[in-house]
Amino acid sequence: MEIQEIVLASRPVGLPSSDNFRPERKVLEKITEGEVLLKPLYFSVDPYMRGRMSSVKSYAAGYEVDKPILGGTVAKVIESKSPDLSEGDSVVGTLPWATCCIERPKNLKKINTDLFPAPYYLGVLRMPGLTAYFGMMDIGRPVKGDTVLISGAAGAVGIVAGQIAKIRGAIVTGITGSDEKCRMLREQFGFDSAINYKATKALRKEIAAECPKGVDIYFDNVGGEITDAAVANLNFRSRFVLCGQISQYNNTRISTGPALLPVLLTRSVTLQGFIVSNFSDRFDEAMSELTGWVSNGSLKYTETVIEGFNNLPQAFIGLFNGMNYGKMLVKAD
Amino acid sequence: MEIQEIVLASRPVGLPSSDNFRPERKVLEKITEGEVLLKPLYFSVDPYMRGRMSSVKSYAAGYEVDKPILGGTVAKVIESKSPDLSEGDSVVGTLPWATCCIERPKNLKKINTDLFPAPYYLGVLRMPGLTAYFGMMDIGRPVKGDTVLISGAAGAVGIVAGQIAKIRGAIVTGITGSDEKCRMLREQFGFDSAINYKATKALRKEIAAECPKGVDIYFDNVGGEITDAAVANLNFRSRFVLCGQISQYNNTRISTGPALLPVLLTRSVTLQGFIVSNFSDRFDEAMSELTGWVSNGSLKYTETVIEGFNNLPQAFIGLFNGMNYGKMLVKAD
Repeated sequence: MEIQEIVLASRPVGLPSSDNFRPERKVLEKITEGEVLLKPLYFSVDPYMRGRMSSVKSYAAGYEVDKPILGGTVAKVIESKSPDLSEGDSVVGTLPWATCCIERPKNLKKINTDLFPAPYYLGVLRMPGLTAYFGMMDIGRPVKGDTVLISGAAGAVGIVAGQIAKIRGAIVTGITGSDEKCRMLREQFGFDSAINYKATKALRKEIAAECPKGVDIYFDNVGGEITDAAVANLNFRSRFVLCGQISQYNNTRISTGPALLPVLLTRSVTLQGFIVSNFSDRFDEAMSELTGWVSNGSLKYTETVIEGFNNLPQAFIGLFNGMNYGKMLVKAD
Repeated sequence: MEIQEIVLASRPVGLPSSDNFRPERKVLEKITEGEVLLKPLYFSVDPYMRGRMSSVKSYAAGYEVDKPILGGTVAKVIESKSPDLSEGDSVVGTLPWATCCIERPKNLKKINTDLFPAPYYLGVLRMPGLTAYFGMMDIGRPVKGDTVLISGAAGAVGIVAGQIAKIRGAIVTGITGSDEKCRMLREQFGFDSAINYKATKALRKEIAAECPKGVDIYFDNVGGEITDAAVANLNFRSRFVLCGQISQYNNTRISTGPALLPVLLTRSVTLQGFIVSNFSDRFDEAMSELTGWVSNGSLKYTETVIEGFNNLPQAFIGLFNGMNYGKMLVKAD
């Protein structure tokens, strides 16, 4: 069976371009005992994947050049030689960017797409949802009346983080990159206010205006100048949830900015950088909470779906241009 | 009774100079019922006082221009109209820079200078000791075998923080500003190694050489380039105790430096800025531990004593030139 893959052609320097990826044809062997043949339905593209494309040592193992990119994928079992999965089952797992692939069930989780739409299993009910959950519940720890500020608020993690803070009774302001996203955050996801950072020249003051009591919890997905402005508004004994730094991932040299430590010191700020796997022993607890909130309607979700396997590189690159509303996905042909 | 005071003549811009201080003569009234007359023995000068000299809002109330500077002081009761204190008692409190002053006992704590030398009550057994205790025990939390790195290691807080880490079984490296201080840290205070940052052009690499397993706990008193080099050596899930930023206190504008957040993120670092008063409900616990360690010899202490009331401004300014070995004090005439 001939399939198509997308491999890492070269490690990106700066913003990735389509040249860093290469489609390849490959012949897939027949599956053997204990294996299943999968046809992907939805591929997840996520900012953390940029780190894996570099050779720099990080928490996630790097992708290898000339090998397919790996990422979160929802797939359908089209042939099974395992007692654990049957033809027609839907599963989620970390799979290669390929039109079909062979896996063993132990690397897969069966999902029920009658219960929730398939894309949820790559977003609110998987890594982005878990990231938002632990970042907000364990590091942010909002209580009723707290002021919460979220950068990258319209992304896959941001919209969940904001809604969790609302569930906990906080007042939530989102920072995002367009008026339309601001409207979405307020009208669709219940944010109390939203700031389009591209439409202001004085972000620090605009945050101060939207958060008149100062910021008790800053949930950062972005870094850079947005974060400099946020830090200036932090309250005494506030929490800084260091979840992402998407503005920095394509830097070719370490960026410079104002020293933040003197502010973090005088305001007794607690900052915690984290990745979701730090909390892996508590995924069941989080999944149960997230599933409950989604089921009862208190946690909504959305995604931007790009059609076509060949558009995977373009969808990934689009993450850095703020192309996505909520989770960014690619739907297989 | 005529006394002398030192008042804040003007708010310093940049490094304080003697012009920012002014001696003044004043007539002290007779003490009335409930008051005591105090003669200071030792004045404490501390880096945090720089912040109180500015008009910028901070955790500590600012000093007023034309009013005496206030600071930690050990004094002797030379006259008492209070049943709570007797002539000859030694006390510690926050007192004006004055050759004599009148106070009420409720603002003072009686001390026993037969038990410990008077300077200890301004250092290891007061704010600097408590700061080191909570910073190391609550934020750093060293366990046996952890690698601990301390900047400003030869200062009043640093030498205590390092010894507490040693008591907990950690491997401790200090960063300081002279070979003599390095020797003191190793020979007198049991640090495993010490780095003279002024004698190296590649501090990051020197830290890596002294801390071959990376840094599990960075206890920062200094900030700036020293901290940039330290952060580059932080381990996954390490702790950053943000205690002081003495290199930044005299800045006339916000300094810039490399963005540290991307590193703190990918290494899942927890950073906590704090001031000792955040832990005020646990001072008794800490004092009991510190007193025990000092008594049994596992916690040593030292100070640099400048003689003469009129040298108070000079001693304070000297903090920013690394003039002090351990606690900086001024002994009254």
